[in-house]
Amino acid sequence: MPELRKDPILGRWIIISKERGKRPTDFIVVKPATKGGFCPLCPGNENTTPPEILSYGRSDPTPNKPGWSLRVVPNKFPALVIEGELDKQGEGLYDKMNGIGAHEVIVETPNHDETFTHLPHDRMIQTFWAYRDRLVDLGRDPRFRYVMIFKNFGRAAGASLEHSHSQLVALPILPRMIVSELDGSLSYYKYKERCVFCDIIRQELNQNIRVVCENDLFITITPYAPRAPFEMWILPKKHSCSYISMDDVGFQMLTKIFSESLRRLDKCIPDVPYNFVLHTSPLRSQPLEHFHWHFEIMPKLTMIAGFEWGAGFYINPTPPEDAANFLKEAEI
Amino acid sequence: MPELRKDPILGRWIIISKERGKRPTDFIVVKPATKGGFCPLCPGNENTTPPEILSYGRSDPTPNKPGWSLRVVPNKFPALVIEGELDKQGEGLYDKMNGIGAHEVIVETPNHDETFTHLPHDRMIQTFWAYRDRLVDLGRDPRFRYVMIFKNFGRAAGASLEHSHSQLVALPILPRMIVSELDGSLSYYKYKERCVFCDIIRQELNQNIRVVCENDLFITITPYAPRAPFEMWILPKKHSCSYISMDDVGFQMLTKIFSESLRRLDKCIPDVPYNFVLHTSPLRSQPLEHFHWHFEIMPKLTMIAGFEWGAGFYINPTPPEDAANFLKEAEI
Repeated sequence: MPELRKDPILGRWIIISKERGKRPTDFIVVKPATKGGFCPLCPGNENTTPPEILSYGRSDPTPNKPGWSLRVVPNKFPALVIEGELDKQGEGLYDKMNGIGAHEVIVETPNHDETFTHLPHDRMIQTFWAYRDRLVDLGRDPRFRYVMIFKNFGRAAGASLEHSHSQLVALPILPRMIVSELDGSLSYYKYKERCVFCDIIRQELNQNIRVVCENDLFITITPYAPRAPFEMWILPKKHSCSYISMDDVGFQMLTKIFSESLRRLDKCIPDVPYNFVLHTSPLRSQPLEHFHWHFEIMPKLTMIAGFEWGAGFYINPTPPEDAANFLKEAEI
Repeated sequence: MPELRKDPILGRWIIISKERGKRPTDFIVVKPATKGGFCPLCPGNENTTPPEILSYGRSDPTPNKPGWSLRVVPNKFPALVIEGELDKQGEGLYDKMNGIGAHEVIVETPNHDETFTHLPHDRMIQTFWAYRDRLVDLGRDPRFRYVMIFKNFGRAAGASLEHSHSQLVALPILPRMIVSELDGSLSYYKYKERCVFCDIIRQELNQNIRVVCENDLFITITPYAPRAPFEMWILPKKHSCSYISMDDVGFQMLTKIFSESLRRLDKCIPDVPYNFVLHTSPLRSQPLEHFHWHFEIMPKLTMIAGFEWGAGFYINPTPPEDAANFLKEAEI
């Protein structure tokens, strides 16, 4: 059983995933992402993944067969396990609980060679539907407080399989990133009685020097204080704390701007590895006036990041105004 | 002039280093750390670095000539600049100031092929002296609030030069990592009236399952909730908030345990890239009952880290008890 453990100084929870247990020698050979060879996410290999949780696009409703256009399956090597009690306990001054949670893989396309960036809109939108459907479903489990949804693209960004996919981790705790954002945005709200994200959007539209692209419902900006070159945030223009409250037009407009933003990035730095993470309100949260859901896209330009990883202090060689300019002018 | 900018939600400061300004195409070719070829840190090439700030070991006191055993020079491509006023200002809802600070390189040995891990103790100790001497000197500049001291070893950990060196960055703000530790340890102190680090040391000595090694004055542990496999913390056993208060015996004992810890790590995972960061109290701080200086050593096992970078949530496949065991049993 994996364990969730809390750092007693910072209050940061981490997962100790013993099932993946690594001996020192396991770290010596670094395996590349599968290139060619067998792919467990390809159609025809459905029996090599755990049974599917959700699929779209089938004409024949039989699960775990080809014919799907998107498929959600449990991670074969989950960081957390779905069955069991949380069993919170102390160990002297330390705090821990059982590593209960869900760890799922969203297979975004049946075609091994398609990248998320270049999916047609009617295909890409399914991924955003799947995020909502899984958020709604996992939100019914009272053990879970948050669902972290993210994508690793490219080996340097942590992808261990080449076939286009994203992941979700349902957690019985709130990850530190969300706690910090909730706290920070609440401080601002208490002081100003406005949502800090809404204020950012207003100022960005006004200044128009960090806007990458926009449509009726969404805006993509390079944030004022980005950790990495070409970092982008995609935010709904109208205040909303929760991803799952989005309507049909919202999904269409999100797909449109997401696709455009990634294609602009890819044009500037072809095939750049990246991570994106959905930031949304905790499960079953009341509507929050101070928090605003959004996506953060972080290109991974390895040689740039250094001690940042250990120290949480970032040096960014590309002003976001320059990045926005390059992105805006990219011919897509 | 570089700029310090604050994220309006998280309060995190980042450096925008325009002088290093990168166009998208600059990211495409990833340069390896200098292997062979010209090394600006080697003796005989002193004129290719900015003039030295400090050196040890010279018989002839003329600076910027060979004969040194350790040398501190300004970074040739500094992230911050030493001359100027802070000039704090707002930009709508955003906060910024001039990128005033120091960025220095500590060249730990004249021998290009020596690694820090395998330096003899009488050589390694000089690095720890240099950290103190620079902390004391930079602490006199009222513009600075913190000096971040860190080492990147190996390309995957961000080292762009092969020759053994560490770096320091003097900052006019407190980095988020230190703010979080100060806040977290103060909460604990308010509740318990004890230093959380002192309590950790007591419990670790008592449980003896995460202790890697110890001597009269220091202890190395794998922390209870580590972000990365084989993460290690080195702490003084006796409460002390500030690195610069260490005495002569302290420096000797620190060198001994640091050397032993790194050699144990190297034995487990040969040549593993790593970062270490000194965590000490802010410059000119009063003695703090709740904060305890220490080093954190983070091996960089690239394929393990994934979305952690973007989301601040860590999955660690190696329980620290296992890591401590491997480290303890390594024959050095």
